[in-house]
Amino acid sequence: MCEHDHSTDHPSAKALLDGLPMNWGKWGPDDEVGSLNYLDPSQVMRGVGSVRSGKVFTLQIPMGHEKGDPIWPGRKMAQRYNVLDKGDFLSGKMPEIPGGTEYSDDMMILYLQGSTQYDALGHVWHDDKLYNGFDARSTIGSMAKASVFPIAERGVVGRAVLVDIARLRGKDWLDRAEPFGLEDILAAAEAQGVTIEKRDILIIRTGWIGSFYKRDQEEFYGEYAEPGLDFSRELVEWFHEMEIPNLVTDTIANELAIHPSSGVSFALHHSLMRGLGVTFTEIAQLDPLADDCAEDGQWNFLYTAAPLKVVGGTGAPVNPVVIK
Amino acid sequence: MCEHDHSTDHPSAKALLDGLPMNWGKWGPDDEVGSLNYLDPSQVMRGVGSVRSGKVFTLQIPMGHEKGDPIWPGRKMAQRYNVLDKGDFLSGKMPEIPGGTEYSDDMMILYLQGSTQYDALGHVWHDDKLYNGFDARSTIGSMAKASVFPIAERGVVGRAVLVDIARLRGKDWLDRAEPFGLEDILAAAEAQGVTIEKRDILIIRTGWIGSFYKRDQEEFYGEYAEPGLDFSRELVEWFHEMEIPNLVTDTIANELAIHPSSGVSFALHHSLMRGLGVTFTEIAQLDPLADDCAEDGQWNFLYTAAPLKVVGGTGAPVNPVVIK
Amino acid sequence: MCEHDHSTDHPSAKALLDGLPMNWGKWGPDDEVGSLNYLDPSQVMRGVGSVRSGKVFTLQIPMGHEKGDPIWPGRKMAQRYNVLDKGDFLSGKMPEIPGGTEYSDDMMILYLQGSTQYDALGHVWHDDKLYNGFDARSTIGSMAKASVFPIAERGVVGRAVLVDIARLRGKDWLDRAEPFGLEDILAAAEAQGVTIEKRDILIIRTGWIGSFYKRDQEEFYGEYAEPGLDFSRELVEWFHEMEIPNLVTDTIANELAIHPSSGVSFALHHSLMRGLGVTFTEIAQLDPLADDCAEDGQWNFLYTAAPLKVVGGTGAPVNPVVIK
Amino acid sequence: MCEHDHSTDHPSAKALLDGLPMNWGKWGPDDEVGSLNYLDPSQVMRGVGSVRSGKVFTLQIPMGHEKGDPIWPGRKMAQRYNVLDKGDFLSGKMPEIPGGTEYSDDMMILYLQGSTQYDALGHVWHDDKLYNGFDARSTIGSMAKASVFPIAERGVVGRAVLVDIARLRGKDWLDRAEPFGLEDILAAAEAQGVTIEKRDILIIRTGWIGSFYKRDQEEFYGEYAEPGLDFSRELVEWFHEMEIPNLVTDTIANELAIHPSSGVSFALHHSLMRGLGVTFTEIAQLDPLADDCAEDGQWNFLYTAAPLKVVGGTGAPVNPVVIK
Repeated sequence: MCEHDHSTDHPSAKALLDGLPMNWGKWGPDDEVGSLNYLDPSQVMRGVGSVRSGKVFTLQIPMGHEKGDPIWPGRKMAQRYNVLDKGDFLSGKMPEIPGGTEYSDDMMILYLQGSTQYDALGHVWHDDKLYNGFDARSTIGSMAKASVFPIAERGVVGRAVLVDIARLRGKDWLDRAEPFGLEDILAAAEAQGVTIEKRDILIIRTGWIGSFYKRDQEEFYGEYAEPGLDFSRELVEWFHEMEIPNLVTDTIANELAIHPSSGVSFALHHSLMRGLGVTFTEIAQLDPLADDCAEDGQWNFLYTAAPLKVVGGTGAPVNPVVIK
Repeated sequence: MCEHDHSTDHPSAKALLDGLPMNWGKWGPDDEVGSLNYLDPSQVMRGVGSVRSGKVFTLQIPMGHEKGDPIWPGRKMAQRYNVLDKGDFLSGKMPEIPGGTEYSDDMMILYLQGSTQYDALGHVWHDDKLYNGFDARSTIGSMAKASVFPIAERGVVGRAVLVDIARLRGKDWLDRAEPFGLEDILAAAEAQGVTIEKRDILIIRTGWIGSFYKRDQEEFYGEYAEPGLDFSRELVEWFHEMEIPNLVTDTIANELAIHPSSGVSFALHHSLMRGLGVTFTEIAQLDPLADDCAEDGQWNFLYTAAPLKVVGGTGAPVNPVVIK
Repeated sequence: MCEHDHSTDHPSAKALLDGLPMNWGKWGPDDEVGSLNYLDPSQVMRGVGSVRSGKVFTLQIPMGHEKGDPIWPGRKMAQRYNVLDKGDFLSGKMPEIPGGTEYSDDMMILYLQGSTQYDALGHVWHDDKLYNGFDARSTIGSMAKASVFPIAERGVVGRAVLVDIARLRGKDWLDRAEPFGLEDILAAAEAQGVTIEKRDILIIRTGWIGSFYKRDQEEFYGEYAEPGLDFSRELVEWFHEMEIPNLVTDTIANELAIHPSSGVSFALHHSLMRGLGVTFTEIAQLDPLADDCAEDGQWNFLYTAAPLKVVGGTGAPVNPVVIK
Repeated sequence: MCEHDHSTDHPSAKALLDGLPMNWGKWGPDDEVGSLNYLDPSQVMRGVGSVRSGKVFTLQIPMGHEKGDPIWPGRKMAQRYNVLDKGDFLSGKMPEIPGGTEYSDDMMILYLQGSTQYDALGHVWHDDKLYNGFDARSTIGSMAKASVFPIAERGVVGRAVLVDIARLRGKDWLDRAEPFGLEDILAAAEAQGVTIEKRDILIIRTGWIGSFYKRDQEEFYGEYAEPGLDFSRELVEWFHEMEIPNLVTDTIANELAIHPSSGVSFALHHSLMRGLGVTFTEIAQLDPLADDCAEDGQWNFLYTAAPLKVVGGTGAPVNPVVIK
């Protein structure tokens, strides 16, 4: 997330979203997990019922890849340092441990939204109100409301469907700033022969994050502009009717950063996340999973994920597990 | 993990483990995930088949609890800091973002083994050799072999059984340095009416980590001595025959730190993890799960977990998901 | 710095300080270094003129002492980690560097006020205004006004006088929460046979920080209450008349945390630092210097110090140099 | 510091330095401060005697400049985060502090050699031996010998001379990889009308670090190759005869990284620092000082500096103070 120049006069998220459905209060005034409430035990069982062969995929990108890790400009890449290793024993400094035990230990410094992660529902807002109407001042110092913690405590388990926009368009990855919309989601599902059902977790592949590892960093970042799902009223209404609990993509922001016609930034964070309480999972690695789905024709499966239980966190890293 | 005074003359892990089964080479000279290899698709399906009602539990402890987080003495507690929040917008320093978008962001400093975590198979060793015979010097600076990364890449999915030693002994939690062994595992399973099957993920509850949040820190830490599974040849042979892929406990080290009769430290890290390639999951929060199992009588379930994909990590935090 | 229970009804720094001298505007509306402006070249020359023998003392405490480092409760102790050392070369992982060069490198995580440090003039305030009237909202995210940077850019050079309150009272160190005042400063100077001149940097020894290394941590911290200079109107007026540019002590907060009769906290931060622009140097190690002064009878000397040039910092560590 | 391709067959620091003077053992087998031993009280008095007008300069570069901070490739730039500020009080989360006290606090993550800094004498070596013959394995985990700590404990005070190579060559700053040598030092001193005396601290300006703030980052870094003092036997012998205690420059490595004719890297670190015990101060900001010296014709002055007292540090940041 970052600031941008105004692309229109006085764009306003509030005006853009006027009249769209909202889920504030739907699960009580204290609710902090939003549309994850849709994932009740019956939905868990529906997810379990979609498993066919026992194949497993993990969706996190590496932390500390030799090519670097893709992050939103302004964030810092994670740093990992050894605290103890065989060197310390070779140095003669470590006291002998009974039995000849030796071990290694390490620590890390990371942006909590700097890898594959769940966003806290409250982490993007406008008009001084977070999801469910919480006061934006509750974000100060630490998120007292709608942090990532309740999401992590609950976990996310359900049936998921992968739609592959890059494959639909016959590309390895979508272009810089390339938009797509509800019609593309539906067209991809149809082309894949999969039905998106009510309360499915929606996973959208653009190929973008995978391209980071195959391209020059300057080419990937440039003036950073990733492809993404573009806001439309129809899209928001469809999410609302379909009761989609979780949107997972292989981009850093899960959407086109600027809605072209209005100039509003992060319009889906405002409408889906803040308005409907849809949890966002960003920076997922979807290429191996998509290749497998294309091969066996199974585009739906059990999805389980639980980000780290960071108290007050604006987000937290996660390594989702898909079981087909 | 830490050093201890010698409690016998010349204790030696090598001597203690002489003649015990080893899995080095069993999955090839390059294998880094050990007994997780047992968790093939048929085991995944067995795990999926154990789901009955769709209840979900997450097993990580909080990171940043108001009482602090339980860590092995010498490690540092995680620190989280906001990078951006509503305060920055109130200050007038942030440039306006199109549409009136505001957001929060944060970062964290953590020991990778400082919360619920998977240990890298290579992170404890003796005699200059890690699991599968890798050179201990490969740990220097970063784990080049048997790091947590391949475990995270693969994910852990299978059927798990919870055995509750605290409940067996009629205690809220086991005492400081209280040992238990194979006979207790079997007795608890029998008392619970559950059968531990071959290739089950074994989860053992002592109540210890849960007690951290109910007790004074000084009482919890003292001269730190947690209860734990005590090494025996029978135990190691049983793990080998049962092909247990993963041992999960609610203690920091998963075992009694010092094997009393030999004085060898971390004998199960040496025999199970280094020798057999059993992955260790430490510092799990098992109390709510155990209460539920006691209530509904279902002590086996689907277990899915994938630690963060930390390249070269000695371990990585994880928030396992249990589906009953 | 930390919060405290109210010890009176409605204590108010504003009321306590009513009518006391202030230096706001004295050096212009943009001034950020306050009474350091007194240290013009003639004062530097006066400091240089006080050098007699060429003895040198450094006043910082160690960072990473084996006993730990004394910090205000709530702050975290600095952590230092090697990034590279001989171990990496022994591991065979490092590529050979031409000529056989090898080297070590390291990094650190620290609270900027967690060792001997200069406080930014703006880092403590009341009534929404920092020193010189700057808006308190300018502290958000980073100190835009009256940060430690201008102090660091300028440097602090002048004549200093050490007054030894512990020695005056015949103690190794003052007791917990033991107060002293202007009359003690003057009595100590007289006992030592030194005259405090206008524009002298004032260094006050209590023995407190030195005691950290000789005592049990629990004894030192307890419910933390350090000895300190106690607020009085006479004291503030004396600092004003004497044009004292810098107050250096061997305590963490440079003053008695709570002014007993009013219940106001950090009354000297408010009156001297915020009101008069006196820079504060905290957590100095003064014991070896004081011993030397007692031996040779020379209690004044050249003082030079420059904290790290941390942009926007609330404070910054420093290792002051005294030349006698 | 970093690795380089071999530019000759088998370059060897050991061979290159054969027969050059060494100071190992000169100040005893435990000495860790090397040529700083030359700075006895008489040298301090000589430095004090060079002060004429009371002008003060500080030589550190900013930490956290809006253009970034110049660091050796591979190191990370410092990150500073607020822990507390006015935002926390606006949020209503902070309990009221008696008297209405509010304050700000912050923390930092930094490479210890990532700003203006003193190198530990032991931080570069070859042939398994540090300065004074200490075992290179003593660097593992933390520098047990010849760390920056004893330098910081002692402090550096003496007479310094600035020689301005950029000015000598009529440039704003020297070019990428531009070498200079002893003859240039002497020529610059002569052109400036200053005499380098025995035991003077030697400060050499290239203009390089100052150029960082005036140029594009890509232009500054490129394939990083900074200008620098080039190794020669005459140069090392001159340092030895002149008993130079400290070399300060405005480059990151204080020397030409590769000695062209031998291909040996960091030949001055090996010969001056490791061999003679000359302390190195790197990344100094010398432009304002040099401009002033050019104007008033005074190129010698009192130099005082003391890096942070980092226990076991490979180096530590410093903000040197010059008094003219």
